[in-house]
Amino acid sequence: MLTKNNAKFIKSLQLKKFRQKEALFIVEGEKNTLELLNSAYKVKTILGSEQFLSDNHLIISKAGAETIEVTDKQLASLGSFKSNDKALAVVHIPTEPTYERRGIQLVLDDIRDPGNLGTIIRIADWYGIKSIICSETTAELFNPKTISASMGSIFRINVFRRNLEGFFKEQSGIAVYGALLNGDNIHKTKFDKEAYIVIGNESNGIRETLLSFIEHPITIPKLGGAESLNAAMATAIICDNIFREA
Amino acid sequence: MLTKNNAKFIKSLQLKKFRQKEALFIVEGEKNTLELLNSAYKVKTILGSEQFLSDNHLIISKAGAETIEVTDKQLASLGSFKSNDKALAVVHIPTEPTYERRGIQLVLDDIRDPGNLGTIIRIADWYGIKSIICSETTAELFNPKTISASMGSIFRINVFRRNLEGFFKEQSGIAVYGALLNGDNIHKTKFDKEAYIVIGNESNGIRETLLSFIEHPITIPKLGGAESLNAAMATAIICDNIFREA
Repeated sequence: MLTKNNAKFIKSLQLKKFRQKEALFIVEGEKNTLELLNSAYKVKTILGSEQFLSDNHLIISKAGAETIEVTDKQLASLGSFKSNDKALAVVHIPTEPTYERRGIQLVLDDIRDPGNLGTIIRIADWYGIKSIICSETTAELFNPKTISASMGSIFRINVFRRNLEGFFKEQSGIAVYGALLNGDNIHKTKFDKEAYIVIGNESNGIRETLLSFIEHPITIPKLGGAESLNAAMATAIICDNIFREA
Repeated sequence: MLTKNNAKFIKSLQLKKFRQKEALFIVEGEKNTLELLNSAYKVKTILGSEQFLSDNHLIISKAGAETIEVTDKQLASLGSFKSNDKALAVVHIPTEPTYERRGIQLVLDDIRDPGNLGTIIRIADWYGIKSIICSETTAELFNPKTISASMGSIFRINVFRRNLEGFFKEQSGIAVYGALLNGDNIHKTKFDKEAYIVIGNESNGIRETLLSFIEHPITIPKLGGAESLNAAMATAIICDNIFREA
């Protein structure tokens, strides 16, 4: 049964300060919850309809999660989305895994919109990219909007938060590409198999203190009138160009 | 000066029923307003700070728009966005232009999210696509979220709303590509110079009654774990593949 205190506690996790204090976050919706249960994330509680809990009881008990049966109305009132279909999970924030350099990795400089971050994580997952390095000013990974936009991909991608200047100073012998104006046409670029791809903030581009690390400026050719593409669009197009030979 | 009645009237235009009744819509923010003033759209009123109105008085008077000087606080209270920077315009909804078949055109089936529609318009504009045909169930063009996401591109693209089955029955002698599962790899597809590209709803794909019109099913190769891409991402990647030879 959902107590008032339980409900209050879960709602508090919509705010970053409570997520940080409790080291917990929430995952909303059936698809995201099922992807979560199939991941290595440690789940504290699953809230769902009688149907959802019974349909998925094997995987839920395997995950070692406690369960609370709730009505659709209760579920909708707990989440940040108006229609919160069938399930919500309370999940432990994991410790960051050990960083490993391998294959193509995205580096996000100041992507502040959590929806954009979630979309970029989903694109990375589509193309089989395993790791993303985010600047300290990039949106929070456990914001409900990031999680929602990632559509479950967040559970398959390692995301690291770093001071990017410090990060790049430690790297050597690896190609660094950056999305910039007046770079090389991505349609004609041969990408290394191991590389960093730096994507900047839509309004400000990649910050100046990172430019010296970018040996390969790249640009998406523009044929029409739009001034720019948003960071998620640009990432999708660049990734498709990187992996088109694979 | 902004009267109470004026303010109430402008706020009412955030709702579709009042936009339809008045045949007016609102454009928010400096960038969108400036793009609007450079377009053929008929502007009724420009609301802006003293600075904005004075900096742009030539182009505003050329557009024949009346002006109302407002404070930043008034501006924020009128719009649908929390920070509504510097300007807002009240604009006449134009009559749909005459449809012309030319070059690559996008056909959107049931893209319900106005943010996605606006983003797709912006992508079309980036690649120089001039026309988009929307199903009757696709989001409204003059929704503030569509306009905001299009970042001014809405004023450069012709958007038509059609019953798509009826539309395709009238077309012949033109290639129709559709984003589907198990279609041809877009990396290996040679696109005709004149063609329709059909993009479906993310959850449901392209509706069944349209499938018989699609001679060329196409697919974005997937290398990782994500189940799908959203409609705007898919459009960006497909457009980049179409125009990569150009």
